[in-house]
Amino acid sequence: MESVTLQSIAQILQEVRANKPLVHHITNYVTVNDCANVTLAIGGSPIMADDIDEMEDIVSITSALVLNIGTLNHRTVESMLAAGRFANARHIPVILDPVGAGASTLRNETTRRLLEQVKIAVIRGNMSEIMFVAGLQSSTLGVDASDADMKGGIAKGIETAKVVALRLKCVTAITGATDIISDGRRTLTIENGSSLMSRITGTGCMCSSLVGSFCGASDDYLAAAAGGVLSMGIAGELAADVAGGKGNGSFRMAIIDAISQLDGDILSKRARLHEA
Amino acid sequence: MESVTLQSIAQILQEVRANKPLVHHITNYVTVNDCANVTLAIGGSPIMADDIDEMEDIVSITSALVLNIGTLNHRTVESMLAAGRFANARHIPVILDPVGAGASTLRNETTRRLLEQVKIAVIRGNMSEIMFVAGLQSSTLGVDASDADMKGGIAKGIETAKVVALRLKCVTAITGATDIISDGRRTLTIENGSSLMSRITGTGCMCSSLVGSFCGASDDYLAAAAGGVLSMGIAGELAADVAGGKGNGSFRMAIIDAISQLDGDILSKRARLHEA
Amino acid sequence: MESVTLQSIAQILQEVRANKPLVHHITNYVTVNDCANVTLAIGGSPIMADDIDEMEDIVSITSALVLNIGTLNHRTVESMLAAGRFANARHIPVILDPVGAGASTLRNETTRRLLEQVKIAVIRGNMSEIMFVAGLQSSTLGVDASDADMKGGIAKGIETAKVVALRLKCVTAITGATDIISDGRRTLTIENGSSLMSRITGTGCMCSSLVGSFCGASDDYLAAAAGGVLSMGIAGELAADVAGGKGNGSFRMAIIDAISQLDGDILSKRARLHEA
Repeated sequence: MESVTLQSIAQILQEVRANKPLVHHITNYVTVNDCANVTLAIGGSPIMADDIDEMEDIVSITSALVLNIGTLNHRTVESMLAAGRFANARHIPVILDPVGAGASTLRNETTRRLLEQVKIAVIRGNMSEIMFVAGLQSSTLGVDASDADMKGGIAKGIETAKVVALRLKCVTAITGATDIISDGRRTLTIENGSSLMSRITGTGCMCSSLVGSFCGASDDYLAAAAGGVLSMGIAGELAADVAGGKGNGSFRMAIIDAISQLDGDILSKRARLHEA
Repeated sequence: MESVTLQSIAQILQEVRANKPLVHHITNYVTVNDCANVTLAIGGSPIMADDIDEMEDIVSITSALVLNIGTLNHRTVESMLAAGRFANARHIPVILDPVGAGASTLRNETTRRLLEQVKIAVIRGNMSEIMFVAGLQSSTLGVDASDADMKGGIAKGIETAKVVALRLKCVTAITGATDIISDGRRTLTIENGSSLMSRITGTGCMCSSLVGSFCGASDDYLAAAAGGVLSMGIAGELAADVAGGKGNGSFRMAIIDAISQLDGDILSKRARLHEA
Repeated sequence: MESVTLQSIAQILQEVRANKPLVHHITNYVTVNDCANVTLAIGGSPIMADDIDEMEDIVSITSALVLNIGTLNHRTVESMLAAGRFANARHIPVILDPVGAGASTLRNETTRRLLEQVKIAVIRGNMSEIMFVAGLQSSTLGVDASDADMKGGIAKGIETAKVVALRLKCVTAITGATDIISDGRRTLTIENGSSLMSRITGTGCMCSSLVGSFCGASDDYLAAAAGGVLSMGIAGELAADVAGGKGNGSFRMAIIDAISQLDGDILSKRARLHEA
């Protein structure tokens, strides 16, 4: 069982920068600009497109597909399903961000349909969202993890990530104060990040875009997911150092700055990545 | 007749920070990211959702609903009407931002339908928009108040705010160089702000989100509306001090910074709030 | 044959600032906030509206219409066609940004329909997009110009711009390392800009909004297109000087700062504008 090393992650980052993978997003209109900018900052190339009639054409030129249900509607849900199936047929990795799963029947049904009809490479969400996917009682309140769902701590998170990974045959990433990434056999934890990240919108969505960029450059999806999550965490730390005292607006800008400056050296020095 | 004091406003701000009210937005795609970030910066928690099939579920977990018709379409108008009715049934305050009312028949009819079918807690707009709501001849040109509509000055604004407040049994907030907030009996003016605020997009929308956050933490909607408007004005001033000389991009970022740093002390020192 | 001078461009900029032309956008949800902010920063007034039922009302109060197909869907395509026809009937200039033309049948067909049904004043795109419009073999990959399409260099770009301008009887602007603007008889090149501009999203879209603002203040569309493209290039240079070393987030903010500070003096000092 090969381990995920910082070297392998740094190697994927180099390949993102060299190959500029085109990452197709069907995503929400709240954080879509941040997702595009973070994809460019890490070295990828974003394309956002959601009309069902161009899903086949767009998917056919992309290296990864990110599906984010943050502001889903009936039209875009059908586009997500179609794009996901086209991506599967072409062996293009699909990253699912089930924003707010647990908070409404529409989100729950959409998450279920996507998981039934589309093979997912990486699912990334907060604890409440992934608990919903695990079929556990979740108390999703809005788009942030609920306090109730955080009570089990890391041990419960690791167990939940493994269950979901094994059932869906995918990599699961639960992001929070401690990030947990698992393919069901190997599980990693990441301790990077800043509490300020929950005080701006889009850090979860941006993390999924980074995972998408890494998955577009490597078929080792565990390492790719870890790379995306680690990059986001380190960027959050660096941004907090530089701009945390100035306020939320400066902090948000500094995250994009940090992602664009990220390299193997910074990753090596900053990473608090461990096998669980 | 109880007066609105800076202490009562500072108290509501503290409650926003402590209780993190979930504020549901059905809003335009131009400034939606700013609305989400300003809601987080003041201490609330934003959720944006607009598919009619999840309106009941989402409204049921929220503390306030902000309806903003900036980029309305036939689909989202029906969602706004449904969400508004669900909010009324649950006694959740509804904040209406009638962006561009007066500029097109679609906006006029939508505003009329919303006011007929939904009980509004606070309506916030510029002079042209609120004049349209008042049934006065309005010369709305786009999404900014027209010069013609500003000619009557503060006296006309106060009269208009009162008429709308009494007719709709709501709080009316007209924002501009001088902000006017009235419940029909009590009327407040706020002299905070900066002329730079009209040189970036979204200050009106963000103000409505702040009003939504305050209304999610207090059922004194006059004080809550004043709190949201005052916070926006003071943030504009602080941002102009820090970043006004650098340009519009820096100014915009500094507004979010200022909102995230706001507290009772800053409110007390800066506020230019008066009873009219 | 009158030449386009820096004086004429500076004059149009002054008129934008004085007259605040209202610029109607039907545009994508990725960069729409940047488009609104850059329109305000140059001195115009943006309005974004896309429901077909208000196209006639909104177009009737505007000075220019920007159509951007970046995240087109079947509903908004019909709105673009309707708005374009209303604008033509009122002699309001239409700016077309055919984002990703060549990348999907839907984008290709939409571009074709828009060009058939709407008289365009200025078409602005990257080399791949304009090559598609020229009927040349294009290898559009996503929303960025492909390396293959850049191989012909400036000479091929000039030829392509002329062909499109003459066929569509419009001004064509191809933006890239060297910008090329032609009405078929007169052709200009602009050497301003920064390679960092392709590392953030929205510089193309913002450029189209600037062209729209200039076209809203002058019926010399060649000079107006040159003015918009030149402003974007100079803002990119200035932003790279100020913030290029900090990262992509700071660079993006500094572009809006630079546009808001732009004046005739800066244009004169910085412009590298030549007749081809």
